[in-house]
Amino acid sequence: MLQQPNDKYRAFPPVALNDRQWPGKTLTQAPRWLSTDLRDGNQSLAEPMDSTRKKLFWQLLLQCGFKEIEVAFPSASQTDFNFVRELIEQRMIPDDVSIQVLTQARSDLIDRTFLSLEGAKNATVHLYNATAPVFRRLVFRQSKEQIIELAVNATRLIRQRCEEQPQTNWTFEYSPETFCFTELDFALEICEAVAAVWQPCAERPMIVNLPATVEVSTPNVYADQIEYFCRHFSWRPEVCISVHPHNDRGTGIAAAELALLAGADRVEGCLFGNGERTGNVDLVTMALNFYTQGINPGLDFSQMKQVVDLVEQCNQLPVHPRHPYAGELVFTAFSGSHQDAIKKGFAARKEQQDNVWEVPYLPLDPADIGCNYEAVIRVNSQSGKSGAAWMIEQNHGLVLPRALQQDFSQRVQQVTDGEGKEMTQAAIWQLFRQAYGLTAPELQLGEYRSQSDSHGQLQFEASVQQDNRPYAVAGRGNGLLSAAVDALRQAFDVSFTIQDYHEHTLGQRSDSRSVAYLHCTFAGNHSAWGVGIDSDVSRASLQALLNALAQGQLAGGK
Amino acid sequence: MLQQPNDKYRAFPPVALNDRQWPGKTLTQAPRWLSTDLRDGNQSLAEPMDSTRKKLFWQLLLQCGFKEIEVAFPSASQTDFNFVRELIEQRMIPDDVSIQVLTQARSDLIDRTFLSLEGAKNATVHLYNATAPVFRRLVFRQSKEQIIELAVNATRLIRQRCEEQPQTNWTFEYSPETFCFTELDFALEICEAVAAVWQPCAERPMIVNLPATVEVSTPNVYADQIEYFCRHFSWRPEVCISVHPHNDRGTGIAAAELALLAGADRVEGCLFGNGERTGNVDLVTMALNFYTQGINPGLDFSQMKQVVDLVEQCNQLPVHPRHPYAGELVFTAFSGSHQDAIKKGFAARKEQQDNVWEVPYLPLDPADIGCNYEAVIRVNSQSGKSGAAWMIEQNHGLVLPRALQQDFSQRVQQVTDGEGKEMTQAAIWQLFRQAYGLTAPELQLGEYRSQSDSHGQLQFEASVQQDNRPYAVAGRGNGLLSAAVDALRQAFDVSFTIQDYHEHTLGQRSDSRSVAYLHCTFAGNHSAWGVGIDSDVSRASLQALLNALAQGQLAGGK
Repeated sequence: MLQQPNDKYRAFPPVALNDRQWPGKTLTQAPRWLSTDLRDGNQSLAEPMDSTRKKLFWQLLLQCGFKEIEVAFPSASQTDFNFVRELIEQRMIPDDVSIQVLTQARSDLIDRTFLSLEGAKNATVHLYNATAPVFRRLVFRQSKEQIIELAVNATRLIRQRCEEQPQTNWTFEYSPETFCFTELDFALEICEAVAAVWQPCAERPMIVNLPATVEVSTPNVYADQIEYFCRHFSWRPEVCISVHPHNDRGTGIAAAELALLAGADRVEGCLFGNGERTGNVDLVTMALNFYTQGINPGLDFSQMKQVVDLVEQCNQLPVHPRHPYAGELVFTAFSGSHQDAIKKGFAARKEQQDNVWEVPYLPLDPADIGCNYEAVIRVNSQSGKSGAAWMIEQNHGLVLPRALQQDFSQRVQQVTDGEGKEMTQAAIWQLFRQAYGLTAPELQLGEYRSQSDSHGQLQFEASVQQDNRPYAVAGRGNGLLSAAVDALRQAFDVSFTIQDYHEHTLGQRSDSRSVAYLHCTFAGNHSAWGVGIDSDVSRASLQALLNALAQGQLAGGK
Repeated sequence: MLQQPNDKYRAFPPVALNDRQWPGKTLTQAPRWLSTDLRDGNQSLAEPMDSTRKKLFWQLLLQCGFKEIEVAFPSASQTDFNFVRELIEQRMIPDDVSIQVLTQARSDLIDRTFLSLEGAKNATVHLYNATAPVFRRLVFRQSKEQIIELAVNATRLIRQRCEEQPQTNWTFEYSPETFCFTELDFALEICEAVAAVWQPCAERPMIVNLPATVEVSTPNVYADQIEYFCRHFSWRPEVCISVHPHNDRGTGIAAAELALLAGADRVEGCLFGNGERTGNVDLVTMALNFYTQGINPGLDFSQMKQVVDLVEQCNQLPVHPRHPYAGELVFTAFSGSHQDAIKKGFAARKEQQDNVWEVPYLPLDPADIGCNYEAVIRVNSQSGKSGAAWMIEQNHGLVLPRALQQDFSQRVQQVTDGEGKEMTQAAIWQLFRQAYGLTAPELQLGEYRSQSDSHGQLQFEASVQQDNRPYAVAGRGNGLLSAAVDALRQAFDVSFTIQDYHEHTLGQRSDSRSVAYLHCTFAGNHSAWGVGIDSDVSRASLQALLNALAQGQLAGGK
């Protein structure tokens, strides 16, 4: 049994902000995005990327539309240093893209950082130091004043180095690391001191990044912290406020979204939420959350499968099957009632005048991220009549009558209940064809002819094969089907009537084949369906009749 | 490129609730929990569980402490029906546990549902119908009145069936499915109508469950919806308000937590967030989020590995390596500065008076969920000096001096930068032993003796093996080490001094071995470390000296 947590863990105290404004706001535009896949994401991998993988990932990030990319911690490892040099020397950075690198507040590391950036057109130097009480007390054993001095001195050196390399367009980013559990007023104090040295303005841009280094509270508290900071920071109009949420409580995306409501301008994160421990906030989900609200995210995930494949290859970590928008199961409905609603949603979409997406249970049109509809409906023992019928309609064009859907779904459920497994598309189609006479029919129509007389009566004659033996049949009626029923009643000595009949063409062309669905009731009150497909509409319905008859005889025990 | 979304997707409208109270509240107690792993979770699996797997999962849920468990949709499949019968007939349900089953609002399905429950001691019948405009218009083609009538009639029948089976303690749960995108006033209207039939009271308990069937907005909007509902529902004091969030926007946990702030009493979800599409809210993360705030969650995940293994086996879906609290990487730090802080946090914990957990970067003590500290620090090319040193301390008891940590970390980074791979514990220990002379030392101490005279001078003599050849060495000094240095200077014709020396015992017993760390500076200004381990403290330091000398000779190019 878990021990009682009350003497070991403490509740995170709320923020004193009684007139908070963010809960009444709505997101109306996407933030600036910073991908830190190549830095924060990379450093958290059991096997950090080599140069080849890093370059693949870099190209992917450009293709997705990122304009700000944190590429390395150049003073921390030779691999990282070399990668920055490669990007610059091999001219791999488009003019509208800014690279960002991280440094600690030590002069030797800062110097090495600037060395790595020589020749860059646009670059952001990202300085961090941890500011929270537990770090001051246990890790650094330094006072607030010493922590501020560290940041201020490093900022001064960075500004000096920037002025010495004027060929680069510099941006300065400062992160009070562990912001979310630093006293808010101390976070403000250190950021004020740093900004006073940097003197942010249009020519000297500055980003103040407020990380949720470890999530410690519900996401509304983080939003309160951001709003409080924005309202009290004297340089607010001159700087870009950035957030960098992690996901220790599983609420990283919510924290970022609520922080944007609270005034943040920019989000740092990774594709699919890679990063230390539980990861950084997932920028794919965030971007598509904007998209599904009708807001252009400024990022392009229209080829999702390619993105997933490449990120899995580079990170050597899987994207979970239930990962929002990207997992293999997230557009899939197994439940019968869900399938029914989705099917009706797709049908209504064909009729609707506008382009508004409102297919039930699908928050995003899979086509928008390069997926087809194949995975939308999958059939297991929990599925109803709609699922299998939808699959057959999507893949083979057959629009099953409602009663036939019902009949077929019982056959499907017998199989799935028995085997405990999902039925694939192929297995469902095979079951359908066997069940309704589309493969190796028991009774096979050979030659037939029909002739109507002047009284509206029709004479029907045909050859029917059973077990490779031909039978000649003949009958009369007021139409083709009634004459055929008459002929078959006589030939097979069986009493039955047609209860329901549907036919439609498969495809739009004049030479398309037709499909006929035919439901017969037999003496003894049982009934059976038959289906026929042929380029001759008459032969399709006659074969459907023969298939229903064969089924009915089987069902009746003959 | 992604198409512009603005003509296809619409922003979800905010809730008119200007005096919302929830953002100022704090969570102070855990909610009632309902696991729907065996129903919502199960129906979303490509291969739903068979009876054996369902029973394994059932036992696990009991062991975790769940008192409310949705076990099946008995009218939808024979497997589900049979499972309910098994639980009841094989007396597998403890007296303090209530099973819940789902039914649609059709009389034949309700009757079959009650048939499945015959003989249960405590049972909740969970009725749902979809209420949102898109469902009324596209799926059911029914008016609001017809939708209400459907729910009311079904409730009437359920109440009647309950009264006919008085041996069971019944609870009634009603879900306006698709609540989160139903007009709030219509959701209220239908719940009022249903409650008016059921007449909830202490003897006739009722749960009103308000699902986020598909996430359609930021989680604060869901909280607004819950608060609005709670404030306007006339039966509020008599009913339990439950939430059932899905995770389409990746904010299911946040939605549930903010909904609890907004007044909800109960949460329906699954372990690790299984469920349709992106899944239901993850109850493991939610429970441990409470735990790390010092609040007893009422659920027990103290044996996390066992829970992960069993759920993966039953669902045939993985738990992601970065899944909060449960993934294999979530207590792991690769980054150098994180490792340093964690190491200091653990060290401080040994000294502290109280039990309060404040190890940096670890929101939960891994021991609380049955994990050891082995995975906490892992070493890759991004790691600093602390990581490798911590591993050696944890696993072998060696507390490396700071300068030796620095020296060793450079050797580690050479390997990790070169190979691009994580270094395992074993590989780090082997590298350490090779680097500092603990395996096959170049210079091996044989017999030695020392004798001090009355003037405080010490005479030292020893046999030293190099390449299997013994050398006799002798020297004088004012202590053992200075005499040994004198002897070695003469014997090997090398000029060096001891710069730093540390020694400690390994373990507490009097016969424990000692470890000595010794740093020498050589002519030409290079330096080297040697380490010695022996049950004789003198031999440990002498061998460390020999190892430093051997290293220094190598480094000096001799």
